[in-house]
Amino acid sequence: MTDLFCVADILKEKDNIEILTHHYPDGDTLGSAYALCLMLQSLGKHARVITSGTVARKYDFLKKGVEMQSFEREFVVSVDVAAASLLGENQAEYEDIIDLCIDHHGTNSISAKNSYVDANAAAASEIIYELSKAMDIELTQDMASCIYTGISTDTGCFRYSNTTPCTMLIASELMAVTPNWHQINTEMFEVKTREKLNLERMVYDTLEYSCEGKCALIYTTLEMQEKAGIGDDEMEGLASIPRQIEGVLLGITMREKADGTFKISVRSNKDVSASDFCARFGGGGHKAAAGCTVEGDLETVKNLLLSAAREML
Amino acid sequence: MTDLFCVADILKEKDNIEILTHHYPDGDTLGSAYALCLMLQSLGKHARVITSGTVARKYDFLKKGVEMQSFEREFVVSVDVAAASLLGENQAEYEDIIDLCIDHHGTNSISAKNSYVDANAAAASEIIYELSKAMDIELTQDMASCIYTGISTDTGCFRYSNTTPCTMLIASELMAVTPNWHQINTEMFEVKTREKLNLERMVYDTLEYSCEGKCALIYTTLEMQEKAGIGDDEMEGLASIPRQIEGVLLGITMREKADGTFKISVRSNKDVSASDFCARFGGGGHKAAAGCTVEGDLETVKNLLLSAAREML
Repeated sequence: MTDLFCVADILKEKDNIEILTHHYPDGDTLGSAYALCLMLQSLGKHARVITSGTVARKYDFLKKGVEMQSFEREFVVSVDVAAASLLGENQAEYEDIIDLCIDHHGTNSISAKNSYVDANAAAASEIIYELSKAMDIELTQDMASCIYTGISTDTGCFRYSNTTPCTMLIASELMAVTPNWHQINTEMFEVKTREKLNLERMVYDTLEYSCEGKCALIYTTLEMQEKAGIGDDEMEGLASIPRQIEGVLLGITMREKADGTFKISVRSNKDVSASDFCARFGGGGHKAAAGCTVEGDLETVKNLLLSAAREML
Repeated sequence: MTDLFCVADILKEKDNIEILTHHYPDGDTLGSAYALCLMLQSLGKHARVITSGTVARKYDFLKKGVEMQSFEREFVVSVDVAAASLLGENQAEYEDIIDLCIDHHGTNSISAKNSYVDANAAAASEIIYELSKAMDIELTQDMASCIYTGISTDTGCFRYSNTTPCTMLIASELMAVTPNWHQINTEMFEVKTREKLNLERMVYDTLEYSCEGKCALIYTTLEMQEKAGIGDDEMEGLASIPRQIEGVLLGITMREKADGTFKISVRSNKDVSASDFCARFGGGGHKAAAGCTVEGDLETVKNLLLSAAREML
């Protein structure tokens, strides 16, 4: 494990840098990647962000100020990528050539020449903020918007237990630099399309309790998605629905994918570990929020998950 | 208008203090009141909180550490009360005898001997925090929990535009003092009873768009409330549903009350003023969040509101 000043020194020496996000990128991996890209470009270096899977339109603003540059890559950084499999379509090309891994998942298993993993950071973007200090780069409004987005999305807008007093100090500074922090929150947390609302109404009808109310499960099918008229890039946020019900310790969200699998998102309360639950199905993540993929039809997968829940609770 | 050090001096001189909250108290008025009560009691003074209307059970923890004291009142402070009518059942007894009014509503119309109104404060609790500094009182965990609750509930957990860099610095300090800030967020923002979820499903079915989608309206009736099995103290939070829909500038929530009126909560986006809208019906509040009360049956009140919306949008 490298310290942050070493990371700064390594990056200062390098040029022609590619920055990898995780598959189906969220606000934190994108915010980290574009902030870092802006930081490197501000030093006169060549840098670009490489994503995998659909990127939701609402994240388009993160690219603001980023120059499109063509170059031969010489150095590869991954941000917020906990495991090689999360590189998605980029896994084969990149998994063995990552020079620097920056992450905040304690379970990080990326094999990189240098790694900086800080599991106490609320978001990978929080590490990028610290890195900007270590690299002595003054944050521009665009950089601050990226970092704010990463921190705010990964902490549920400063609500989740991963938030720290330090997170708040960082956010305070970022808010002073980027006047559009409120617009970011509105777009990240508030704005719902009519189609999304339609889907939520359908999802509420799938709600099922088990284990004396300690487990709640919801699902979406491709048919529901089509009926509601919404794309894959708008499917975020459903996973918080089952966990928030009073008495629920394990909230499971199943999402049917076109390849015959279900993407499972698990959220847990109190001492129940979502990542232990997902590990049973070859997945992982954080204690209170984790994911996995399970093959099979709706009933089969649901029964597998519910029997695992019964064993655990 | 008095400055905060004058407020501190006034309070230091007084004893036997009653602290008034607004009607149907929320996290900010209760957090402010109990924090101030704890602060005064920590100085050896007698103080108590006087509420009006049902207090939701989820706020019970704010009373932690507060001593129940009996005394003859000598001094009356109101916190987070924007107008005398918001004193509810306490209006007649108290409206003419308020010695000190502490508030963050720019529209404050309380007539008190001394007033401290700071419309830049995200929450009245933020003023109570500043007051603790002015009074040189070291915050205990219970005080910090009260103030954190007030700030976090009034800012939608640091999401709304009233949040400032200063709010984040205060929250950072409070989080370091009260380890249960996350539990507070969970209870304030996440936990939903099954009954509440049932009601939300019904509410989604009342959703109606007008003004080319710029206005969205939802309602609850006493019948729906009974069918869902939920009490008045659990009706909070519905008002955020219509505003969050893409393209909606004015989100209106109507709630039927037992006295033949509807309690109207209005939330607005961009340049649309919720308080201007509510002022047409004798109500008021903040630009993006306001309320009023309208008499009549469901259809009549709905039509009144929708025609006002058409005029405004």
